[in-house]
Parts: sequence; structure tokens; C-alpha cells
Amino acid sequence: MYRSHNCGELRESHINEVVTLSGWVQKTRDKGFVVWIDLRDRYGITQLIFDEERTSHELLERARSLGREFVIQVKGKVIERTSKNSKIPTGNIEVLVAELNVLNSSKTPPFTIEDQTDGGEELRMKYRYLDIRRNPVKNNLIFRSKVTMEVRNYLSQQGFIEVETPYLIKSTPEGARDFVVPSRMNEGQFYALPQSPQTFKQLLMIGGMDKYFQIVKCFRDEDLRADRQPEFTQIDCEMAFVEQENILNAFEGLTRHLLKEIKGIETATFPRMTYDEAMAKYGNDKPDIRFGMEFGELNHVAQNKGFNVFNAAELVVGIAVPGAATYTRKEIDALVDWVRRPQIGAKGMVYVKCNEDGTFKSSVDKFYDQEDLANWAKATGAKAGDLICVLSGDANQTRGQLSALRMEMAERLGLRKSDEFAPLWIVDFPLLELDEETGRYHAMHHPFTSPKPGQLELLETDPGAVRANAYDLVLNGNEIGGGSIRIHDKETQSTMFKHLGFTPEEAKAQFGFLMDAFQYGAPPHGGIAFGLDRLVAILGGQETIRDFIAFPKNNSGRDVMIDAPAPIDEEQLKELNLKLDIPS
Amino acid sequence: MYRSHNCGELRESHINEVVTLSGWVQKTRDKGFVVWIDLRDRYGITQLIFDEERTSHELLERARSLGREFVIQVKGKVIERTSKNSKIPTGNIEVLVAELNVLNSSKTPPFTIEDQTDGGEELRMKYRYLDIRRNPVKNNLIFRSKVTMEVRNYLSQQGFIEVETPYLIKSTPEGARDFVVPSRMNEGQFYALPQSPQTFKQLLMIGGMDKYFQIVKCFRDEDLRADRQPEFTQIDCEMAFVEQENILNAFEGLTRHLLKEIKGIETATFPRMTYDEAMAKYGNDKPDIRFGMEFGELNHVAQNKGFNVFNAAELVVGIAVPGAATYTRKEIDALVDWVRRPQIGAKGMVYVKCNEDGTFKSSVDKFYDQEDLANWAKATGAKAGDLICVLSGDANQTRGQLSALRMEMAERLGLRKSDEFAPLWIVDFPLLELDEETGRYHAMHHPFTSPKPGQLELLETDPGAVRANAYDLVLNGNEIGGGSIRIHDKETQSTMFKHLGFTPEEAKAQFGFLMDAFQYGAPPHGGIAFGLDRLVAILGGQETIRDFIAFPKNNSGRDVMIDAPAPIDEEQLKELNLKLDIPS
Repeated sequence: MYRSHNCGELRESHINEVVTLSGWVQKTRDKGFVVWIDLRDRYGITQLIFDEERTSHELLERARSLGREFVIQVKGKVIERTSKNSKIPTGNIEVLVAELNVLNSSKTPPFTIEDQTDGGEELRMKYRYLDIRRNPVKNNLIFRSKVTMEVRNYLSQQGFIEVETPYLIKSTPEGARDFVVPSRMNEGQFYALPQSPQTFKQLLMIGGMDKYFQIVKCFRDEDLRADRQPEFTQIDCEMAFVEQENILNAFEGLTRHLLKEIKGIETATFPRMTYDEAMAKYGNDKPDIRFGMEFGELNHVAQNKGFNVFNAAELVVGIAVPGAATYTRKEIDALVDWVRRPQIGAKGMVYVKCNEDGTFKSSVDKFYDQEDLANWAKATGAKAGDLICVLSGDANQTRGQLSALRMEMAERLGLRKSDEFAPLWIVDFPLLELDEETGRYHAMHHPFTSPKPGQLELLETDPGAVRANAYDLVLNGNEIGGGSIRIHDKETQSTMFKHLGFTPEEAKAQFGFLMDAFQYGAPPHGGIAFGLDRLVAILGGQETIRDFIAFPKNNSGRDVMIDAPAPIDEEQLKELNLKLDIPS
Repeated sequence: MYRSHNCGELRESHINEVVTLSGWVQKTRDKGFVVWIDLRDRYGITQLIFDEERTSHELLERARSLGREFVIQVKGKVIERTSKNSKIPTGNIEVLVAELNVLNSSKTPPFTIEDQTDGGEELRMKYRYLDIRRNPVKNNLIFRSKVTMEVRNYLSQQGFIEVETPYLIKSTPEGARDFVVPSRMNEGQFYALPQSPQTFKQLLMIGGMDKYFQIVKCFRDEDLRADRQPEFTQIDCEMAFVEQENILNAFEGLTRHLLKEIKGIETATFPRMTYDEAMAKYGNDKPDIRFGMEFGELNHVAQNKGFNVFNAAELVVGIAVPGAATYTRKEIDALVDWVRRPQIGAKGMVYVKCNEDGTFKSSVDKFYDQEDLANWAKATGAKAGDLICVLSGDANQTRGQLSALRMEMAERLGLRKSDEFAPLWIVDFPLLELDEETGRYHAMHHPFTSPKPGQLELLETDPGAVRANAYDLVLNGNEIGGGSIRIHDKETQSTMFKHLGFTPEEAKAQFGFLMDAFQYGAPPHGGIAFGLDRLVAILGGQETIRDFIAFPKNNSGRDVMIDAPAPIDEEQLKELNLKLDIPS
């Protein structure tokens, strides 16, 4: 038996008990006549004591020789500490060691195993197994496990069945790139790893399974942006015999349950907002509504006043940044530089200081009088002390730029509080979105999303105007889930594929099984999928998903710890009927 | 709202309520003046009634026109049935339909959606979504979901953390073949899909995670035997600071919990048996101990009596088949033919009938007298009325043959009762096994398994004799789990790799990260993995895993429903820097 207790559980009530502990040497303090060792495991830290009076010389010397991260087992008596430590739960006791057994030695770790470590990202990833010993990472993984248990318990209690769908499926060129898997047994053929279990969950609905969920890995071979992973985890859900309202209620229930059980927060009914409203008010389909700064459209009060920049703009729009009227010239210049950075791309920024005395001071006083600026203040909801920031230009681009500025200002003002949670449904998404490069329409959600009733005909005349039974759940400015009511008849699905540029042959080759299935009594159905990595990070009060993944990959899709991907044997390639074909 | 109730929940207490139901048309009975429809969903069947008196003519006609598997929504009043059906929970009521809404039509399904279907395996797989509508398959999937919830709840309550390990990892030539995944971003390099999360769970132990589990898909590119799948699910577990005893206790607890919660069966402490004992008693390292028929070794009582076949044999061994002394000559001949089938491979079979009067009648009466045969009966535990079946030859082969015969006889005699559960630990497995073809030793469990203390030196002199800290959990003749205490120091691991034929360079290239990790304070650790597919099938009282998998693949690794694997675009191959290289 390696231990009778763990390193987090001994209390005063254990005093005089003889215990056995195992763990890692966190720290040694050697005062000559006494040696203290902090022994650490997953559950906490317990102080060990060796001293000249009560410990044999040999044992004391052996204690002295232990290095950081040595794995040891000790047996000894729990005693009361003379100088107590109220910061840790075991701080009232220590263990007077009688036996010491070194289970394993350790080289000096490449970074300190402390909450604040000296290890950089790359080093931490290479030695991820050491990084996981650190509380922040360890606690994130435990937190993730707790969240998934809550998800499963809640959905199971609601009658959802977790069904595992296959990982070795078929490649479909729609959407992102698939990872493919050559089949040795089927010459020249490939499986693909699922980007999501979408078609399978629809087949489960057709199979009568009715309420399905799965916490499942998904794969996308994308050029990685920051904080994206080639493999990621989804909470994938689908229901049959439902309308949008049923789905929103069911998964609002799940989210409310998580906020309550995990964060101890009771939430009211989630607000809902149409996509169009979100774009107009926040320039963004995943607005952070923990704070205001709603957009004020200024076209009617800012155009035709002789300021050509605004006159030529499709949209003039501003936000009122609370309390920022005191910004200095230098601070405002920095802000202008910020919006002009290539990542944001604004040409410039007009500002209005709303002074405490009710007057306004703007960068365009030449064109606008106090009454004009008062109208701007009204449109943006600015109060005395606020700074109105105004951008203009192409409507879509300008909204995006102002949305970025809004988020930046919120960040700077500390309005994005990690312990505050503001969920929100965005509904009525467009069915299609135009790819500006190719001039082709893509499915905004995916090709299985149903258009709003009666809008199918609009596909012919005004495809961009068609709205879908599609919805996103947004939490603190992040899309944490998205879904739709699906098409469940062959004709509508065929029409949809046609509009997405599939020939009937392509549609049949790729999704024939689904369209066949639609002909055997497919029920109305719909669903949602949550991005677990992000959900967990946000519930954990953070936004970086990487520290909530045990063994993440870097931005080139590499696992730097195991050094994957890697070349494989010639023999292995040959068995797969493949040859490398690398352009020299 | 598509339904107010499901098709399984209406009772007499609902009489006079107006309800809305949705589901599939299971069956229509048309008596002219009245039409009954069985409406089915996941939860059950509710009878709908349309009649000339109370239903409009138009509605009655529409009801008549509904085909099997049409999806309909009905609204109507719950009424008491005149002729009740006690076989179904809703059998006391029916719904008098006032409104009928056809949600989707259906072509005639290719097989009947009944518990006993007319569909063959291949057809059922092609239309798996229809197969899932059948109770046996649907219930199996629901059962599986229930088992996994129980596993998760139990392990979580015991302090285990579920950690997701990566799917895109590195190929290692040891063991079965890996499925590989070409990396587009890392030219000429490949990920591999995990055969198990073995190394990652060990790294989690080194990371201090202490008690880990994961229900996880694993992948093996094997030539498929019957009832094997290229992707399968494991309950993967690992613990640190444990000895074998701790692991056996922890997972005996899990198994006992499952038997109790899922099957309502209380089990005593699981028996334990060494590998050597299992091989001697049952010729098998996963014996079914729901019944006896233990092996009796007969060398000492059957050799040197003039029967050359036995004299020349390494092993003479028999079992007593209960109550089979009455077998006719023809039945016994058939049994001899059975053991001589190539799948079994015995050269012949000697039998002894233990007559009710205490005499014996054997096929070798020429060589053995009644006293000899009485000794055989004693050695095999045969009683009056039993039939002793004796095989002989090479020890290992003969044991395998007699084990197959034992299982076959148990099957024929109905001794393998699907509602009886006999768990058993097999311990002290050999560390290595000799590959007869190559003359090389392989790791019997895997290369990370630790030898028994003090046996490391034996590797040099008698590798086959080394026993490991390895164990299997056997249930009803199936290995449902297996694991070991791992090596946790670099030196032992290097020695092991050397004995398995790795050069130091190969070992470093493939497992360098693990051996590095061992140098930073690796704790003693060990674990176990359960095959979920099989565990669920056995708990479900069946032995075929395929019907416990939603979308299984066939014996060529194909998903015949979606038709995968399949060729991919030339363009896709090019992006991956690959070319097909199929021998013409």
C-alpha cells in the first residue's frame, strides 16, 4: 500500500495517527537542525518534518538529499504544527517522518512546478506531463471532467441517449477540409474523420432515437488560426418531433443547469435577438452583452453636413465609451492608431468628448455644431463623461471594425468580467452567405439547415434574403453552440444542394444515403452542437482553450511532446498503396 | 408542438384528455367501419382509432391511405378500449383521432420493422437507420448508453477524472497495424490513430493525475476476424501509487456496481486464478466458469498401457460432459467429426461412457480395463451418466482443442446461461510470448508491462518463464478487461525494449518522450482497459457486439450504409503530397 491518505486530507483530527503518504517533493527547507519538505500530490500539499531530536541522523541525511520532484513514500505520525499555515487546508498539521522510501528520482524539471511558472508555452507543451502537475492546468482538466459529467447527467435525466457514431466515415468536399485515412483493405480508398457527426445524428432521428447526444471528437484540417485545434470536442445533440422553440428551451435548460451547478449562478430566461438585430446593435453575431456600448447609427444625423468622409459612407456608426471623455489627446491618438491597424482596418476615427458640463468637443467641430453632437449622443446613448467613437464606410466592414473597438474598450475598462455570465440566443440566421471571392453562396450553418417556412422560393430570386431556422447560443461574446432545424424531405434537400452548386450526381454520391433515408419516414428534427473546449474555458473564466485540453497541438498542428506527425515506414506506405509525391 | 405525450405513456388516468402524438405507422387494421392504427415511437405503441360513427368520412379515408412507416401527427381524445391488450403498457386505452397530419410519407421499407425481422444482416446494415427503429437494436443502444453512464458515475464518485487524450498521435510499429492520417501541413508526415491511449494515460500519471479514466474510441487496422471492428470503444483506466491489489479491488468494485445496477445481481468477491492454473484447468486464459467440466489430466493413468496414441502424446486430457453417457453412437461420431474440423484440429477423440450402473464403456476398451477407466473418471470428476471426452497430443494444442469442445458441449447443454454472470480474475500472465513463426518474443500484454519483482534477470536466461504484473478480468468466458502494473523507470523500460528487439535508436525514436518522462519523477502506476462493446454485449446477455454498435462496419471494414471507404479527389491527394500506387 503506497498511501493511507492523500496529501490534501490530513487535519487536526488525525493528530497522533500513523499515516503513509506518497507524492512529489515540492520544496525542501533545511534549517540545519530541522528539515521540512512539502509533499505534493493531486489533492494538496502536506508538510513533512525531520529533525535532529526525533529523526535518526541517517534519515535526516536522506531527507536532505531529496531533489525537487523526487517521488517519495513516507510513514510517520501526524503532529500539530508549531507555526500553523492558514493558507492550506492541511496547514495545522505536519507529519513527523519515521520511514522514507524513494520511489523515483527526478532530473531537475525544465521549469518550476508552481502556479506561476517560469516555463514558456513551447517548453510547457514539450513537457506537458510536468505542466499538468501545476495547479492551474490540473484544475482545468478536473474542471473539464466535472462539466462533462454535469452535461451527461443532465441530458440523461432529460431522456437523451448517448450514442457513439463512427470515426471512420466518408470524405465530403463541402465545408472545411477532411482528414483522410487510407484503407489498406480497400485499395485506393479512404475513410475520412468526421468534421461532426451531423449526418449520423440525423440518421439516428430517422431511426427513431428521438433524443440523442454525444460528447465527441471532431476533426478539421484547417490552416490553424490562433487557438484552433485540428481535433476538438463537441457536445453534439439532436431531437426529433421538435420545432426551434423546443430546442432552444431544451438547451437553455442545459446551459442554465451548468451555470447553476458549476458556477452557482442562477440565470433568468435567456434573451433572444435576431441575427439582423445583433449585427445592427453590436456589429457581430456573437455579441458580448455583459456591457452596453450598443451601436448608434448616425447616418441621419451625421450626413449632409459638409463632412465628405461621412457623406460618402454607406454607414456612419458610433459607440459611447463610458467615462472616456477624460482621454488625453495622446490616448485618443493611440486609439485611432489601434483602429487603423491592419487587423482592424479602419481608415480613421471621429470622436466626440461628452464633457461633464454638457458641452461636446469633437474632432469634427468644423462640420458639426453642439446640437448635431447632442443628436449623436442621443443616438449612441452617450452620457456626460463618455467618449463617442465613430467609424464610417462600407456597412459590413464598418460594423466589424466598430465591434472590435467595442470589445477592446470593454477589455480596457474591465467590463468583460470573468465571473459574470451573459447568455443570449441569436436566431433567424441567413440560410446562405455569399463568398465574396468566388461569388458563390455557401450554407451559413450547413447544407442540411431548413429555410424558414415559405421562403424556399426566395432561393431563386434573392438567395441572400432567405432566413433559416438556425440559431446560436452566445456566452460572453463567444459562440458556444449553434444549430438548426433540419431539412427532412428529399425534395427540399435536393433543391438546397442544387443552390449550393452540387450536380445531382455529386449530391447522390456524397449524400445519397441521407436522401434515401429521407424517403423512409424521416421525422421533423433539429439539433445543436456545443464547442466543449470553448464552453469549458469560458465557464472557467478564461478564453484560451489550450489550457483546458490535456495534450493540445500547436499552431502547426504538431504535438511537440510526442513529436507527431512524423514520417512512416516505406513498408507501411506500400501496404496502403501510397507513394509520397513531394514537389522538390 | 408536435406532441403532448409520447407513444408509451398514456394510461387509463389520461382518459378524456385531448392529446397530441407523433410517430410512425406500425400497422393498420381496417375492418371497414373502423380503422385501427398502431402508432410507434421510441417509447412504445399507442393504438389510434378511426370509426364511421365518430370520425369524419374524409379523415377515415385519409387514415386508410397511410402506409407502413409513414410519420404522422394526430390529435384526439384518450378513450377506454373495448378490447384491452394486457401485453403493452398502453393497452387499456386508445386515441380517438380528430385531426391527422401526415408529417412524412415512406416508401415500403426493405424489411419489416418488427422484433423478428425478415431482413438479412447485409440489408439491415445498409438501412441501419431502419434497423435502429426495431426494438432489439434500439434497446441495445439505450442499454449501452445506460452502462456508460453507470461507469462514468461510479468512477467519478471514486475520484477518477475523465481526461480526453488526442486522436491524432504518432505511429508505432509495435503491436497491431495503425491507421495513419496524412498531414497536409507537415509534408510527407503522418499522424496515427491510437490503438489505445496507453502512453498518454501513463503520462497523465506522471503528470500527477493519479486516477484517470476515459471512454474512448480506439483503432486497429487488422485483418478483421468475425465480430471485430476497426474502431472499437475502450473504458480506459489508470491509477498512480498503486499495486496490483489496488487495481483489482478498484475495478472489481466497478464491475460489481455494474452487475448490481444494470442486472440487479449481487456478486461475491471475484475468484482469482493464475494464468497457469487457468490453462491447466480450462485450456484457456478466459475460462467460462458458469459451469464445471474442468480438465482432468490423464497422462499418469492413461499412458504406458499399450495405447500408442496416448503414449506418444505430450498431454492426455479429458472432460466429463454431464449426462451425456446416453449419447448414441451416431451422436458420438458427430462429436468426433466436430473436434476433427479444421477449426478445432484434433486428430481424434477417445470417449468413456460412465454408465448409471457404475460400469464404463469406452472406445479404447482394448487397452483399458474398468479400473483404469474408473481412474479416468476420478481424474475428470465424472459421475454416473457422464461422458468423458479425451484428447491428446501436443500440450498447448490439445488444451486449446479440449477447451473448444468444453465450450461447445456447454452451449449444447444450455450451461452458458445468459442471465448468469461469473466474473473471474486471471493473474500472473507470462510477460512474453513466443511467436512460433518468427521465433521472436512479443510482449503478451504490451511493452510497458512490468515483470514480477526480481524476475528481470530471468529475461536473459528463460524469457518465457518471466511472469508479469498483468491481469485480465474474465466474464462468462470472455476477456472483458485487461491491464498491468507498468514499468516506471527508464532502465527497466530500456531493458524491455531491448528484449523485444528494439535497437536503442528505435526505442528512442518511438518512445523517447515516455522514457524522458520517466526521468522526471514518474510514480509507480498501473491500469486496466475494458472492451466496452463486448462488456455491453455480455451484460446484455448476448455475445455479438455488432448489435450494440449504432453504425458498425462489416468484415471488410466497410460501412455499407454510407459506402465508406471511398476514393477521394485527385486534388485532395495532391494537397496531401500523395499518389496512389496500386499494383496492376
